[in-house]
Amino acid sequence: MFVNTLPRYEILTEDAMAVLDKGWRRIVSEIGIEFLLPEAVEQFRAAGQTVVDDNRVILDPEFVLEHVAKAPREFDLQARNPERSIHVGGQHMAFASVYGCPFVREGDERREATMDDFENLVRLSQAFPELDSPGGTICEPNDRPLDSRHLDMVYALQTLSDKPYMGSVTSGPNAADTIRMGEILFGGREAIEATPASISLINVNSPLRYDDRMLSALMEYARAGQALIITPFLLMGAMSPVSIPATLVQQMAEALAGIALVQTIRPGSPVVFGSFLSNTDMQSGSPSFGTPESALGLFCTGQIARSFGLPWRSGGGLNSSQTVDAQAAYESLMTMLPTFLAGANFVMHSAGWLEAGLVSCYEKFIVDIEILRQLRHEFTPLEIDEASLAFGAHEEVGPGGHFLGAMHTLERFRECFYRPLLSSTENFERWQKKGGRDATARAAEIWRATLEKYEAPALDDGVRAELQEFVVRRRRELGD
Amino acid sequence: MFVNTLPRYEILTEDAMAVLDKGWRRIVSEIGIEFLLPEAVEQFRAAGQTVVDDNRVILDPEFVLEHVAKAPREFDLQARNPERSIHVGGQHMAFASVYGCPFVREGDERREATMDDFENLVRLSQAFPELDSPGGTICEPNDRPLDSRHLDMVYALQTLSDKPYMGSVTSGPNAADTIRMGEILFGGREAIEATPASISLINVNSPLRYDDRMLSALMEYARAGQALIITPFLLMGAMSPVSIPATLVQQMAEALAGIALVQTIRPGSPVVFGSFLSNTDMQSGSPSFGTPESALGLFCTGQIARSFGLPWRSGGGLNSSQTVDAQAAYESLMTMLPTFLAGANFVMHSAGWLEAGLVSCYEKFIVDIEILRQLRHEFTPLEIDEASLAFGAHEEVGPGGHFLGAMHTLERFRECFYRPLLSSTENFERWQKKGGRDATARAAEIWRATLEKYEAPALDDGVRAELQEFVVRRRRELGD
Repeated sequence: MFVNTLPRYEILTEDAMAVLDKGWRRIVSEIGIEFLLPEAVEQFRAAGQTVVDDNRVILDPEFVLEHVAKAPREFDLQARNPERSIHVGGQHMAFASVYGCPFVREGDERREATMDDFENLVRLSQAFPELDSPGGTICEPNDRPLDSRHLDMVYALQTLSDKPYMGSVTSGPNAADTIRMGEILFGGREAIEATPASISLINVNSPLRYDDRMLSALMEYARAGQALIITPFLLMGAMSPVSIPATLVQQMAEALAGIALVQTIRPGSPVVFGSFLSNTDMQSGSPSFGTPESALGLFCTGQIARSFGLPWRSGGGLNSSQTVDAQAAYESLMTMLPTFLAGANFVMHSAGWLEAGLVSCYEKFIVDIEILRQLRHEFTPLEIDEASLAFGAHEEVGPGGHFLGAMHTLERFRECFYRPLLSSTENFERWQKKGGRDATARAAEIWRATLEKYEAPALDDGVRAELQEFVVRRRRELGD
Repeated sequence: MFVNTLPRYEILTEDAMAVLDKGWRRIVSEIGIEFLLPEAVEQFRAAGQTVVDDNRVILDPEFVLEHVAKAPREFDLQARNPERSIHVGGQHMAFASVYGCPFVREGDERREATMDDFENLVRLSQAFPELDSPGGTICEPNDRPLDSRHLDMVYALQTLSDKPYMGSVTSGPNAADTIRMGEILFGGREAIEATPASISLINVNSPLRYDDRMLSALMEYARAGQALIITPFLLMGAMSPVSIPATLVQQMAEALAGIALVQTIRPGSPVVFGSFLSNTDMQSGSPSFGTPESALGLFCTGQIARSFGLPWRSGGGLNSSQTVDAQAAYESLMTMLPTFLAGANFVMHSAGWLEAGLVSCYEKFIVDIEILRQLRHEFTPLEIDEASLAFGAHEEVGPGGHFLGAMHTLERFRECFYRPLLSSTENFERWQKKGGRDATARAAEIWRATLEKYEAPALDDGVRAELQEFVVRRRRELGD
């Protein structure tokens, strides 16, 4: 996987960090956080925290920090193919596909996503080494019953890919199903408790509220020692004030409170400081992605998460565009380049995100893979030594010469530069003769060819049968 | 103009800098640099440097550094409208339009550029405050005679815009014409010698060679104290070895030698360390822009130029794409975001660049303006204090609430976030109802509307007449 050893880009001064630190302490201790699940409230009450109005927990910041400190700074996440296991934290960056989209886009067609789309997008995620995980709900399989589709999704993630995956968070029982299927795939409870076999996304119902479904999933996963990403869901102007500093402070209050809850349930359980921070377009009232504000949020959030010794999640190929055009591309890179500069440890939505996250797009998937490939190359350190200066090449070529035929070039031309997957440098005449296809049209060819070449990773027949049996039984129990 | 007070992103260690420093010294002192103009060679010989093979100058690195040190660290560049004058160096960043393109693209039409295009692109450069200068050869006016078109271009730059402009570098006499026209516009020789009224691009005929036309222009401008950008023209694999460190070293050798020449002609004359560094696509053999290599070049070049106390030029909206698609956008931002991170002082090709620089494109111009607007916002420091934390808004809204109607939001909604020029956040249905136009189609509307609203900046009738008279006379003298 990718290890980002280049410097981090940090813009917060020590004074600014001190102001922010005071801010989250004030929120948790003066306003508090709502937890809409009695079990979670009890957890805090038992740990000595004050509860008001039934479900609002007033937190002592020192209590929060004491528990946050129990979370591991870095942890491993198992894949069923050990070569695909990943490390979360430090200089490591893991990339997962888009998550949570009700629609798909394929060329000019935009439609409700189906299970076929889900499977295809998992196959694409498996095929590209730039992705460490297909993620989880890569699109919503709307043709499957709502109550049991989590089973179909987890089964597809487990069988069509051998990379780590994300679990269901739609309820406690669904989380329990994910865990049970992990036990089957990885050989029992002990195997997945020793090293987590899933990572799941708990969104805060911001501002300052955790809802009951997410909380019951959180508690289920935490008890099993499965990794969690605790993510305040912050579109400034809707779920947080129209101020980046205010939103950073709210993000700290919400995330740290959730992380503390996980640590009260199972100290040392792996957890990630999550960030999903952008703004409302105050003209259209719609969410806006790939904005300067979200880039600033990334720079700051990385610095903040590191100050608490926590791995962190954010970034991706986010954009608001309705189609795979110039806007989709510049907004996505406006998020992804800062993601690398800020050194995010777990990057959701790394491939396929379109239309403010409503759409999983096949062509955009390929555009994003190209961007990821470029950035991985860009954030690989240069080796600078005497030999790299190629003085001999200058002696060979001399003033006014050309390096294309030089010995130094011939020995290195295959590996010396980044080689594009999608981008074209063809001259205009040649490009036109070949059909004059733009990047989106070329991307369509690439994803189709990739699916054609896809081979499912091998899986033990017994394990597969046991997974199938579990899915069939649970589906029946759920009445679907 | 824009002042970038955010931190610089620097990736070279002290050890790496020491290796690079040895490298350029070895090139200038062991191989030397060719100057294909006897006058330039004499300049070096008179200053005690060794000349071999008639025009190759073997340079003492200490001599080079001694002269480089005479260049100002920062300088002002006059505009005829004093409010539009710019400062080059330090934390200041100046942005100029695309330069040198033989073709234009307008929608789906690609054609030879004309004087009408030249004028329209200057008008667009004047209209957008994100651009500090229209640049110079914003496209080649192919419908004007080759010998005298520099007069048409300078006249258009001087009259259709009141921002600083770039001069002709196609020969010494053409440079002299530019200077004379500057004297007319700014009120005499003294006025432009006190503060330069033009900045001109001297490209090195890399590797390690300056040609006679560029050198004669260089000497003309240097004598008049007009600003110069000395730019090694480096596409790795063609004009330099297939190695970034080797190319950085060559860039230092070439640029510093040219800067030293300027300083022997007129010590203290304003000069900019130029960089134009990308790579050949080793598969197509074509130049490749917006690559990871060029981003790395930007990070390194900024650090290197600062180490010599010189303002520097590089960056822009560079890309290899044939059309205004996703590739054009991600490659452009892959150059422009690093340009900001590296703090380039003078940024050519900031708007309009397409197809590896062969094309000035109207729609791309608008895409680039949007990118510039976003980045200027992104690289504006956050104000983080108690008030910015908006604690009152949290008290007002409370857990689970919504901030859209909050007093804090209502008081700030107009100014709180970046407001796009081109990007759309409209929901799919609304976007589709309005025609489903992608960013490129919307950009076409924006540039047309901008041209319609354009008003030429006022100019004294006497000055205009004198400029016209000069152009007519010189054109006659040149036989056109």
